[in-house]
Amino acid sequence: MTNQTTDPYYSRTSEQWEAAPRQDPTSSDAPGPLTTDEVWNYDHNGFLFAQGLFSQEETEELLREANSLAENWPEDRPGIVREPNSDVVRSIFRLHKHSDVYRKVFADRRLLDRAKQLLGTDVYIHQSRVNYKPAMNGKEFFWHSDFETWHVEDGMPNMRALSVSVFLSESHEFNGPLMLIPGSHETYIRCTGTTPENHFEHSLRRQEHGVPTCEALEKLLEDREIVAPKGPAGSVLFFDCNTMHGSNGNLSPSPRVNLFAVYNSVDNAIVDPFCDRPPRPEYLAERSIEAIQ
Amino acid sequence: MTNQTTDPYYSRTSEQWEAAPRQDPTSSDAPGPLTTDEVWNYDHNGFLFAQGLFSQEETEELLREANSLAENWPEDRPGIVREPNSDVVRSIFRLHKHSDVYRKVFADRRLLDRAKQLLGTDVYIHQSRVNYKPAMNGKEFFWHSDFETWHVEDGMPNMRALSVSVFLSESHEFNGPLMLIPGSHETYIRCTGTTPENHFEHSLRRQEHGVPTCEALEKLLEDREIVAPKGPAGSVLFFDCNTMHGSNGNLSPSPRVNLFAVYNSVDNAIVDPFCDRPPRPEYLAERSIEAIQ
Repeated sequence: MTNQTTDPYYSRTSEQWEAAPRQDPTSSDAPGPLTTDEVWNYDHNGFLFAQGLFSQEETEELLREANSLAENWPEDRPGIVREPNSDVVRSIFRLHKHSDVYRKVFADRRLLDRAKQLLGTDVYIHQSRVNYKPAMNGKEFFWHSDFETWHVEDGMPNMRALSVSVFLSESHEFNGPLMLIPGSHETYIRCTGTTPENHFEHSLRRQEHGVPTCEALEKLLEDREIVAPKGPAGSVLFFDCNTMHGSNGNLSPSPRVNLFAVYNSVDNAIVDPFCDRPPRPEYLAERSIEAIQ
Repeated sequence: MTNQTTDPYYSRTSEQWEAAPRQDPTSSDAPGPLTTDEVWNYDHNGFLFAQGLFSQEETEELLREANSLAENWPEDRPGIVREPNSDVVRSIFRLHKHSDVYRKVFADRRLLDRAKQLLGTDVYIHQSRVNYKPAMNGKEFFWHSDFETWHVEDGMPNMRALSVSVFLSESHEFNGPLMLIPGSHETYIRCTGTTPENHFEHSLRRQEHGVPTCEALEKLLEDREIVAPKGPAGSVLFFDCNTMHGSNGNLSPSPRVNLFAVYNSVDNAIVDPFCDRPPRPEYLAERSIEAIQ
């Protein structure tokens, strides 16, 4: 439940947005493959870009799996989201339960060791998905902090999670690359409004609640500039759960396909949602906590 | 009226799109300020970009006029278009009739002499407008050839017109810059479907008819790459009436404001529309032909 006295990250309780300071560390001193500089940059900017972390051969296999999942997803299995006004697949969720290929990737040391180093603990997968942003047809995604939703709607207590985006196709200027606001992870934007019933059924297609106001965004952008890391398939973007991000539509002839995994600290397992609604389905917010070894 | 026997540019007559070769020259041998190279490039690519053609001081005056028009447009005067689902102004039309400031710019030698050199005749303004793509809120515009609409809905006989876009604010990667397909002006894409009654009332907000299929766009992009000229306020983009173009949404904190004018050859004055509908209003398609001196 929402409680403004005990919950530092309360949100959607008023018609006025607010900026509140982050209460949690973004990185740790744990050992791992990242250099001190890389950890500092992640801590400072809220994201880290590793160009070409996976080979072309590996990426091709991951892309085949993405296409195969979209084609063969059972009709009665939840976790598939289509573009507004069309049957084109936008996202497929809970891959850590439904794909051996992806389960193996999520445990790959190049991802796992970086996640554990940044979070400083063992981790588990809170959510995983593949996003297809189809050529000529991919829709925009307005600015948002994932943590705001995961906190309010899923019950994630603290900012102790990070997202990993593995590029399964080249990400370039014209296919709607992920845009981030550097440094935005340090500020928690309390959104206006409330959480409607079964919000997730609509919010994955078009967001209206849990999105920051333009004023809030302008504040975050006062002394920072938007960045959109671009690179070949196999590149990986690590970003904090509270880093403000969004993406434009894709009017280019090449799709933008991305594999996402959210690593959450085992010390940050989700509780009851911080709103007056029942928890979202498990394909959006995993409730079985199994540290990845 | 549509006539497949006599009209080389018939469109919206079938459920199958088609690519047809252009029948008209893109440029001329007339003298003017452009070098032979610049004319060759325009002829080859279908556009030409002149960075910083207007000074900062001049541009500031033009931007003031844009904002003043949006604020003071009489409620009963046609020619103002707002964003879907909001009151934010997207475009204001027929500036050559309603603004002394802009009438003067359209006759400025830097624009007029280039237009006359490229078209090789005297010219008049077929359409003029200012486009406001508001910060955080500007919507995308799908790929289209202006000529297809001007031919079918306005009765422009031939590809003897060009557009001039004067940047009234910086155009950068994140505020939805105009994207073009180089060389696309050489091919006429016959669109599928028909022209609905009063189409313009909807098409200026969201287009559904007179837009190319994804297949057609992929064909145009087979051996070409999208370009999006960027530059400071005061830069000017000249592009042929049949160059395929579009733009992404604007999720950035800066608006993208542009002044547009369409110069049409006086030998290409519009006739009855090439569809079974009455002509669109004059704020979209000027019917009084006055060569600019």
